[in-house]
Amino acid sequence: MSELRRDPIIGRWNIIEADDPAGPEAFEVETHANSGGKCPFCFGNEGMTPPEIYVVRPPGGAANGPGWSLRVVANKFPALKIEGDLDRQGMGVYDWCNGVGAHEVIVETPDHNRQMADLSIAELTEVVKAFKARSLDLRGDKRLKYTLIFKNFGLSAGASLEHTHSQLIALPIVPKRVQEELRGAERYFEFRERCPYCDMLRHELQEHERVICENRSFVAICPFMSSFPFELWVLPKEHGADFAQLAPEPAGDFARILKETLLRLRTALRDPSYNFIIHSAPIERQAREEYHWHLELIPKLTKIAGFEWGTGFYINPTSPEQAATLLRDIQIG
Amino acid sequence: MSELRRDPIIGRWNIIEADDPAGPEAFEVETHANSGGKCPFCFGNEGMTPPEIYVVRPPGGAANGPGWSLRVVANKFPALKIEGDLDRQGMGVYDWCNGVGAHEVIVETPDHNRQMADLSIAELTEVVKAFKARSLDLRGDKRLKYTLIFKNFGLSAGASLEHTHSQLIALPIVPKRVQEELRGAERYFEFRERCPYCDMLRHELQEHERVICENRSFVAICPFMSSFPFELWVLPKEHGADFAQLAPEPAGDFARILKETLLRLRTALRDPSYNFIIHSAPIERQAREEYHWHLELIPKLTKIAGFEWGTGFYINPTSPEQAATLLRDIQIG
Repeated sequence: MSELRRDPIIGRWNIIEADDPAGPEAFEVETHANSGGKCPFCFGNEGMTPPEIYVVRPPGGAANGPGWSLRVVANKFPALKIEGDLDRQGMGVYDWCNGVGAHEVIVETPDHNRQMADLSIAELTEVVKAFKARSLDLRGDKRLKYTLIFKNFGLSAGASLEHTHSQLIALPIVPKRVQEELRGAERYFEFRERCPYCDMLRHELQEHERVICENRSFVAICPFMSSFPFELWVLPKEHGADFAQLAPEPAGDFARILKETLLRLRTALRDPSYNFIIHSAPIERQAREEYHWHLELIPKLTKIAGFEWGTGFYINPTSPEQAATLLRDIQIG
Repeated sequence: MSELRRDPIIGRWNIIEADDPAGPEAFEVETHANSGGKCPFCFGNEGMTPPEIYVVRPPGGAANGPGWSLRVVANKFPALKIEGDLDRQGMGVYDWCNGVGAHEVIVETPDHNRQMADLSIAELTEVVKAFKARSLDLRGDKRLKYTLIFKNFGLSAGASLEHTHSQLIALPIVPKRVQEELRGAERYFEFRERCPYCDMLRHELQEHERVICENRSFVAICPFMSSFPFELWVLPKEHGADFAQLAPEPAGDFARILKETLLRLRTALRDPSYNFIIHSAPIERQAREEYHWHLELIPKLTKIAGFEWGTGFYINPTSPEQAATLLRDIQIG
């Protein structure tokens, strides 16, 4: 069973496996092995995963059998588990909380050989719908405070399975990184009475220097203060703090811009590994004038070293202006 | 010329190369090449580095010639440059500051084939003295607010040269990560009127579950809330916020515990890559009742993925109790 433990200095909570901890032999030192063997996310191997929680399948098909085009299942090796009451307590100078939460996997296609960027707009729209549906469903659980949706693509970005998938983790606490965003946005709003993301959007659309592409509802930019080379954000043009409130039409536009940016990235950077994260408001109080949901994507190109760990700053060797120009100008199919 | 740019939401400053940005071809995707060729830090190659700022050399030897046992030089490819006035300004919704600062390299030995763990106590004490001397010297520069001393060991931990060395970066702002620590420590002190690190030390020395080793002046522990497997901290037993105030005797004890923990780590984890960082108070107001300098070491074993980027939390598969037991019980030379 994992535990949550809080840093008494900076307030960061970590999830720690205390009962069955991995020893030194559990860690590979940067091999890039192919998963090989039988893939649990492939068509026909449905029995290798926990039962499906959500599925896109033509009418008449049996649950947990073939015929599906998208499946959501519980993570077989979850970081947090859904069973049990929430228990928080002190331990001497420290604070402790048990590892309650949800950890789900969104298998985006039954086909092992397609990346997220290869999915059709219709298929990607189903992925976006699944993200929304799972977020909304988990709001019924009063123990949970935050739902994180993210994707790890590539071994070096932390993906343990090659077959394209995203993940959802719901947590009993609002994470440190989200609290930092919320507090920062609140301070900005107090001072200016405007959403800082709306201000940033207006600035970027006017200057156009760091814009990669846009459609009716979304814009993709390389942010001014990018921590990483080719870091990119996708922001909805219309203010909204909660990703799960996305209406059907903008959901299609989100799928469209996601495909376009992934294709641009793949072409420009020779198919890099990456992480993307949907930044959205906590479950409580989703209507926030000062917060604006968005997607942040980090291509895995640089290493985190002592300077970054010591300062919380990052050394980014590529300006976002250069990155945006390259991503904007690249020819995609 | 690099720039500092501030995230308007969470207040993080990043260093960005705007004039000569690296393109996609500048990034290797996880090859583990040996540096090969001629090493600029080796005995006899002194001409390949900028001139020495600090040196340990028997009397009579010429500057920048051979005969030295430790050298400090300016980084040939610095993240920040020491020339010029500090310039901070707004840019629309953003904040900007030029890249003024110091970036030095401490070459710990002229011998390419020794790791830091292989240095004698006397040699390591000279390294600690060099850290102190360079920190104190840079305090004369009123543009600088914080001095960070750290080490990257191994390619995957961000070391671009194999030859054992540490780095010093002095910054015109107090970094986000340090501010978080200071604020957290201040809040704790307000509530309890005790240093949180002193409390933690007392707790750990009493329980002894997470103690790796100790000597007269220092203790090495795996912290309760470890973000990473086998993360370890070295703390001075006596309260002090400023590393550079370390007296000669404790400096020797620091060298001793550093060597011991590095040897334990190397033996237990088959010579892992790692980062260590000395966390010390900002240049202004070093006497702080609530802050306690220490060293944090992170072996490079796990990958940072979407969850970590999205939450600021880390998933640590090894409990610190397990890690401390292993590191404590391992037999070293």
